[in-house]
Amino acid sequence: MRILILGADGYLGWPTTMDLAAKGHDVVAVDNYLRRTIAEDTDSEALYKTPNLIERGKIFEEVSGHKVDVEIGDLSDADFCLGLFEKYKPDAVVHYAEQPSAPYSMRGFSEAQMTLNNNLNVTFNVIWGAIQHAPECHIIKLGTMGEYGTPNIDIEEGWLEIEHKGRKDKFLFPRAAGSLYHTTKVLDTDMMWFYVRTYGLRMTDLMQGPVYGLESTEIDMDERLRTMFNYDDIFGTAVNRFLVQAVAGIPLTVYGKGGQTRGYLNLKDTLQCISLAADSPADKGELRIMNQFTEQFSVNELAERVKEAGDSLGLNVQVKSIPNPRKEMEDHYYNAAHSGLLELGLEPNFMTKEVLVDMLKLIIEHKDDISHDRIMPRVKWK
Amino acid sequence: MRILILGADGYLGWPTTMDLAAKGHDVVAVDNYLRRTIAEDTDSEALYKTPNLIERGKIFEEVSGHKVDVEIGDLSDADFCLGLFEKYKPDAVVHYAEQPSAPYSMRGFSEAQMTLNNNLNVTFNVIWGAIQHAPECHIIKLGTMGEYGTPNIDIEEGWLEIEHKGRKDKFLFPRAAGSLYHTTKVLDTDMMWFYVRTYGLRMTDLMQGPVYGLESTEIDMDERLRTMFNYDDIFGTAVNRFLVQAVAGIPLTVYGKGGQTRGYLNLKDTLQCISLAADSPADKGELRIMNQFTEQFSVNELAERVKEAGDSLGLNVQVKSIPNPRKEMEDHYYNAAHSGLLELGLEPNFMTKEVLVDMLKLIIEHKDDISHDRIMPRVKWK
Repeated sequence: MRILILGADGYLGWPTTMDLAAKGHDVVAVDNYLRRTIAEDTDSEALYKTPNLIERGKIFEEVSGHKVDVEIGDLSDADFCLGLFEKYKPDAVVHYAEQPSAPYSMRGFSEAQMTLNNNLNVTFNVIWGAIQHAPECHIIKLGTMGEYGTPNIDIEEGWLEIEHKGRKDKFLFPRAAGSLYHTTKVLDTDMMWFYVRTYGLRMTDLMQGPVYGLESTEIDMDERLRTMFNYDDIFGTAVNRFLVQAVAGIPLTVYGKGGQTRGYLNLKDTLQCISLAADSPADKGELRIMNQFTEQFSVNELAERVKEAGDSLGLNVQVKSIPNPRKEMEDHYYNAAHSGLLELGLEPNFMTKEVLVDMLKLIIEHKDDISHDRIMPRVKWK
Repeated sequence: MRILILGADGYLGWPTTMDLAAKGHDVVAVDNYLRRTIAEDTDSEALYKTPNLIERGKIFEEVSGHKVDVEIGDLSDADFCLGLFEKYKPDAVVHYAEQPSAPYSMRGFSEAQMTLNNNLNVTFNVIWGAIQHAPECHIIKLGTMGEYGTPNIDIEEGWLEIEHKGRKDKFLFPRAAGSLYHTTKVLDTDMMWFYVRTYGLRMTDLMQGPVYGLESTEIDMDERLRTMFNYDDIFGTAVNRFLVQAVAGIPLTVYGKGGQTRGYLNLKDTLQCISLAADSPADKGELRIMNQFTEQFSVNELAERVKEAGDSLGLNVQVKSIPNPRKEMEDHYYNAAHSGLLELGLEPNFMTKEVLVDMLKLIIEHKDDISHDRIMPRVKWK
């Protein structure tokens, strides 16, 4: 099928582009380098350089024989985005094209304004691209487990049947996110649900947990096909920060008490999930929501895992709590369902010591390039 | 106290401006005439002309002795909106400043795009105006009962305690609105709740039902102080459309089965509600939500009430069902709580025959100005 990958230059977008092209799909990769631009603006560049999307497409074709069409442009610009739908009439769209950093969205007025307008308008334009030019198109949208926040009840997969005063109905599971970035994904979900039920669109909304990992079948073919690795406070996840701190000889900085629990996912499993979702499209008028992670643990457990992997390489890893720059619960109930993707056929790759050791080895190769200034939190929630 | 009225030129904005000024508040009235512009663009102008906001301010001062400051500008422009907060450091803000038409928001891509961007950005700018220049300011935001849609459970006032698998938590009451306009208010609520709990703002979100009525203490002082009356398919409510149809000798057009049930409110009660909310501000970090209506009934019952009032004036009113241009349930459960404002002191003015007869008499004065082209639905939901 013909698939548009929106945000194809990103950490997940690029491996997804290669994975779907290698599976024989007719892939169009779209990006405007927003993430690279913000990284430069905020001194938050990745650990090693990666070729631009046009170069990546050429290298991938040279290495694999699979051609990828590349379109560079701003999807929050309606003419560009709707024009792509008109030109390509896609069977499916994978929508990663959002400003993805929570700290950036909390940095100040203009960053928050950009995040809100960019993310909502891209999603809005994608919806209208489908309405106007590809009504049967299956839109696969990346949401985040962060949409739910940390409720005191079990988190279900997107929806919740509620019984109230003897009557019942089914609703979107209540959402209360911890940053403006995460909140824009809540707004996306609300807006998507309105348009899906009103115009009979097909949509899958994947509530993804933090993703880690640097390997995939295609990445492993050539060093030039690697995906970006951010360890800074703007784009880096806790996993990446801890791994880099382990290599740099800096204590792993747990924010506050470290009881913050989330569901995690291997990059290889993101690729499986997207491909499985594409192969089994949502029905017309269905907003299918699945929670996309394979195992859940706290930041303290994560630090312990990184310490164990690091120590096995002789790194002598220390762990230290620092004041939490975010406003979030540090000790809370967390139990989230995630059976939908397993039922579609997902075979999980867990966060084993071997996986972390492989990541550490790659980081050690670039040890001299680690910028210590990028690791500690530079954005506070208040 | 100093109060900014945003959207002060509108059907509710102008009577609110006069009411709060007459109560001795230091009122700043802000508008950019968006509604008048859309009305001109869509051949949906009000039944009679009203002076512009600057003229209205002068007439009101001349008639009542109360001065109102007027600022004309676009609140979706951050410089203008944040500049007002910096200049006036308001104690309270009444935020009506949104594109308020459901049919307009469903007309096509560009109208939907404008509605989304205008409404979200005004609310966003108001939030940031408070964060940066008036953190103690009480923001009174007009939401809509339409945010909830028509769930099969009782509608509570904004929040719902949910018990799930033996655990409990309190969440925003689930929302599922029937138009993009109504959906932007859902997004507003989600965004406001994020910023309230993160920055400790004070906010009241009033889920208002359709408002009817053309009288208030200040309007009654001088004909030139009247508020606008729209009966067209873009800005007119079902109440106004029925009243005009009764006068014009056109059967009242019930959309579909007419079982659509909503909570209604007299204009005088909107004024009471806003004033009561302003006198009892929300706490810091509180998003206080109240359902703002006084009685609920179906469209069929509404048509019967208008018919009864019209017949008493000898109008011989007919009622007719036409195909529903909207996508909505026409026969549904509806039971919404609305005790919060009664507890604050609201004394309801119900939709009596006398109220409808008074409105009919005013419309009869302008019978020759009724444009039949504006009454029937020109926008369909699909």
